[in-house]
Amino acid sequence: MSNTPLRNGEPNYQSIPTDPEAAAAAPDNQAAKRNKRNKIIASVALGVLGAAAVAAIGVYFWKEPGHEPRNVIMMVSDGFGPASETFARQYYTWEHDLPYKHILPLDSIHVGQSRTQSSSSLVTDSAAGATAFSCAKKSYNGAIGVDPEENPCGTVLESAKVHKDMLTGLVVTSRITHATPAAFSAHVAWRDWENDIAAQQIGENPLGRIVDLMFGGGSCQFLTNQTTGGCRKDDRDLFSEAKDKYGWKTFANSREQFDDLTEDVQLPLMGLYTPDHMSYNIDRDPKKEPSLAEMSKKALSILSKASKKDKKGFFLMIEGSRIDMAAHSNDPAAHVHEILAYQDTIQVVKDFVDANPGTVVVSTSDHETGGFTLGRQTTPDYPEYKWYGMAYVILNPDVIQRVQASAEILTRNILSQATLTANYIEKVIVKQGLGINDASKEELDYLTHWQQKNLTSSNIEEHLANMVSVRALIGWTTHGHTAVDVNLYAYGPESDKLRGTHENTDIGDFISQYLGLDLDAITSKLQSSTFVKPLEVASDNQAKHRYGHSM
Amino acid sequence: MSNTPLRNGEPNYQSIPTDPEAAAAAPDNQAAKRNKRNKIIASVALGVLGAAAVAAIGVYFWKEPGHEPRNVIMMVSDGFGPASETFARQYYTWEHDLPYKHILPLDSIHVGQSRTQSSSSLVTDSAAGATAFSCAKKSYNGAIGVDPEENPCGTVLESAKVHKDMLTGLVVTSRITHATPAAFSAHVAWRDWENDIAAQQIGENPLGRIVDLMFGGGSCQFLTNQTTGGCRKDDRDLFSEAKDKYGWKTFANSREQFDDLTEDVQLPLMGLYTPDHMSYNIDRDPKKEPSLAEMSKKALSILSKASKKDKKGFFLMIEGSRIDMAAHSNDPAAHVHEILAYQDTIQVVKDFVDANPGTVVVSTSDHETGGFTLGRQTTPDYPEYKWYGMAYVILNPDVIQRVQASAEILTRNILSQATLTANYIEKVIVKQGLGINDASKEELDYLTHWQQKNLTSSNIEEHLANMVSVRALIGWTTHGHTAVDVNLYAYGPESDKLRGTHENTDIGDFISQYLGLDLDAITSKLQSSTFVKPLEVASDNQAKHRYGHSM
Repeated sequence: MSNTPLRNGEPNYQSIPTDPEAAAAAPDNQAAKRNKRNKIIASVALGVLGAAAVAAIGVYFWKEPGHEPRNVIMMVSDGFGPASETFARQYYTWEHDLPYKHILPLDSIHVGQSRTQSSSSLVTDSAAGATAFSCAKKSYNGAIGVDPEENPCGTVLESAKVHKDMLTGLVVTSRITHATPAAFSAHVAWRDWENDIAAQQIGENPLGRIVDLMFGGGSCQFLTNQTTGGCRKDDRDLFSEAKDKYGWKTFANSREQFDDLTEDVQLPLMGLYTPDHMSYNIDRDPKKEPSLAEMSKKALSILSKASKKDKKGFFLMIEGSRIDMAAHSNDPAAHVHEILAYQDTIQVVKDFVDANPGTVVVSTSDHETGGFTLGRQTTPDYPEYKWYGMAYVILNPDVIQRVQASAEILTRNILSQATLTANYIEKVIVKQGLGINDASKEELDYLTHWQQKNLTSSNIEEHLANMVSVRALIGWTTHGHTAVDVNLYAYGPESDKLRGTHENTDIGDFISQYLGLDLDAITSKLQSSTFVKPLEVASDNQAKHRYGHSM
Repeated sequence: MSNTPLRNGEPNYQSIPTDPEAAAAAPDNQAAKRNKRNKIIASVALGVLGAAAVAAIGVYFWKEPGHEPRNVIMMVSDGFGPASETFARQYYTWEHDLPYKHILPLDSIHVGQSRTQSSSSLVTDSAAGATAFSCAKKSYNGAIGVDPEENPCGTVLESAKVHKDMLTGLVVTSRITHATPAAFSAHVAWRDWENDIAAQQIGENPLGRIVDLMFGGGSCQFLTNQTTGGCRKDDRDLFSEAKDKYGWKTFANSREQFDDLTEDVQLPLMGLYTPDHMSYNIDRDPKKEPSLAEMSKKALSILSKASKKDKKGFFLMIEGSRIDMAAHSNDPAAHVHEILAYQDTIQVVKDFVDANPGTVVVSTSDHETGGFTLGRQTTPDYPEYKWYGMAYVILNPDVIQRVQASAEILTRNILSQATLTANYIEKVIVKQGLGINDASKEELDYLTHWQQKNLTSSNIEEHLANMVSVRALIGWTTHGHTAVDVNLYAYGPESDKLRGTHENTDIGDFISQYLGLDLDAITSKLQSSTFVKPLEVASDNQAKHRYGHSM
């Protein structure tokens, strides 16, 4: 990145349809006044949509399915607990001077809560969490589409493909081989075996190729580490294999190629935009990487058009993958911008549901991350409730608004400096990057002298993030996950069945029942088949994989 | 208290009706085996009820109202955020070896979430929170039944009484003059003016006496500080005034008198069992103080019988008041036992709703307290997810189970010792009281030398509570409140209207609409009337009251 780590300011979602009446009601001028640089245009678009959502609460625009094929859109907001929704709503409402009753797109489809424990812990990881959605089974932390005995379990994506001849897709902002998308499309005993997950995803699977569309990051898992941007331990080129061996027709691994995709593109289609995870939305260069909402909108139009031909419908999993990662770093600014990007995506999907009878969307989280709370005692005195104490001009959301880059990218910036000066830390990293003008000498020295202090990149990243949190009075209790129930959202036919409290496995059951799937039949087929022996099993510590020492 | 601060072990709720089939299914033996001293009999009763709740999920036993009068039971779990429900469920399920799908009574009636911000802050206090429920209006932190300009606003309790001739009741475990019950039955500009609140509650109110039944703590606000157990700044005896001037018929201010109350008792009825707040359930002596469930069951039978005579119905507000206070002290053991006592009460109320068509219950929290989370990083290393990591015999709920008393009562014990020895701290306070056998020298010394260190009682209480939390891997971020949305529960006719996300004021609107009330008419009446000038206004710092520096 450059030396001026400013948050990218280009509008991203002009194409999202808006309600003209709601648009007129959205106080863009006031918002623009406060937010002088008017940099979060994406969020302004969301403001319009959010205002529409207020009007729509309790009013459903979707239609009961007729003879149309049924579609399911499963959305995962990774690491997003109840406090994160409150945080995003309060921040957004404050930033845009909206009425206090303003709600976000997710709020408008709130139906209940999901209980998240895995078979191995009261605190799940993303692998067990996603396997609960995909296989409708509890499994251990680290399990990718396998049961507690490490046997493969059939997923809703696989049964949709095999039994119903539906089209299938995965759209994420992490590596496409990361836990959540992997648990729908692969079967390995431990989540870190991403080389093997990639091979299964292109078609090296007893069921053959079962994914028709993949958008996300993580191309390095598809290329050998002998090539630039590759990280495979073997010498395979999975892009070539995908094309030659498994019939993948289209590759769109750049922003330009993504933009050129039409809804008539030939499937299967793969678009991986970064070697590793895609950028946090706060850092994202829209000239290089599409947003989650853009990828989702394109995936929906492609899958919808293609599946209408033979009237079989589609199953699409969309993940706001990095909401979780920002929470692992306890980085509130990166976190809120990931959430707002997810809300944009929810609006895209809600509009699709309204326009396409027979489509249902379910959105939930695998778990909470960070022990994130909206109140923090920073002195021994009893705290005043001053997170946005309206009457007192103590406007802590300001602190979040001033942040221009994630702690992750600022840390990379620090580590990339051949010579690091105190002036650079203060001016570029802290003032420009974090928007903090009152840093203490200790706070700055810690960063300037990171090498003498033997700090890791995590130490630096967490320090930067904490400088923001402590000023915003935002609390965190861990860099890991917690056990709190997460919110459950749904919209479309039969979504009433998800009202109230549910085990996370109920979500897999709901999808299975809505589409008339047979997960047990897939499980039998998988368990009677031979998988290619995992490449990575030998190089990993087998004992470790039950400990959920993971994201 | 005595020198052996053991949790009281007597059964409390034998009279709660149970489902014999569910009772047979509850693994009491296993639970008793693990919990060798079998001390939490109240919770065993809940186990039975909880099991019944599992069977009942999604199945409603209430009937649509016919010609019966409509009743509303408004329940407030003060300071109870989403993580607290998860915590209580996981603890309870673990303690009684129940299946992981086991749910608590509240879970079985989950309908949505309530958004809690006040007119003065994104983080509300209990006064503004309760005024949102009672007046259906946002007001400032500290407001008791008054609007942001400090003008009185009509409450649902008042309109039920004045316009519908219904019976009304308040059942709490705090002082009856504390913020939540006060906001339904009084109008003062600042919550600490409890002397004035007490006077309004007995009938010194422009509307006259509007409460028919009050159970709870806080008798000191009714007696002058010249008498034992009194704390009024004037020389009034409100018990005598209530009887002579405002027609209160029955006083039952002891456990014996409570037990003697029949459903035919003459109203108005007052039962205040402690000078200050009632004891935490973990500390409660059932020979001296009834439980919240017992008080609620008795209140329901009395109000139900009496209101059936003239077919006008009743409005009852029940508060689990001290869930919040345990969270303020960051005391996880006191917190979970308050929550389980509240769950018992929910079951009593659900049974009442089933048996009495036309009755609806709404249960929610005013706000979250403590920034409570179910995961805590205690080392710089990445945390393992070991809060009940089943496979690893790291059973942190053990830590909670071993605690025998609240940090509050242990602190009083420490402060009451004429001579405090290191041995007493280690043996009686830490080993017996907290159930901790691995305390460090620093942890013990802090307590033994509290006087030399100039510690306050809060310092001691928070230290004791933290010794438990850190071992259970439970996180807290503040001793105050936070802004997270709280869970919303409802059961009975029209409770579907509360599904999804709501402002806290919607709950007041729901009650008002369900009972056909007219809050504006009460507001007009109150605003055109003269209140007795608050006794305490002169002695308080007027400027302070907008700052929510409060519980």
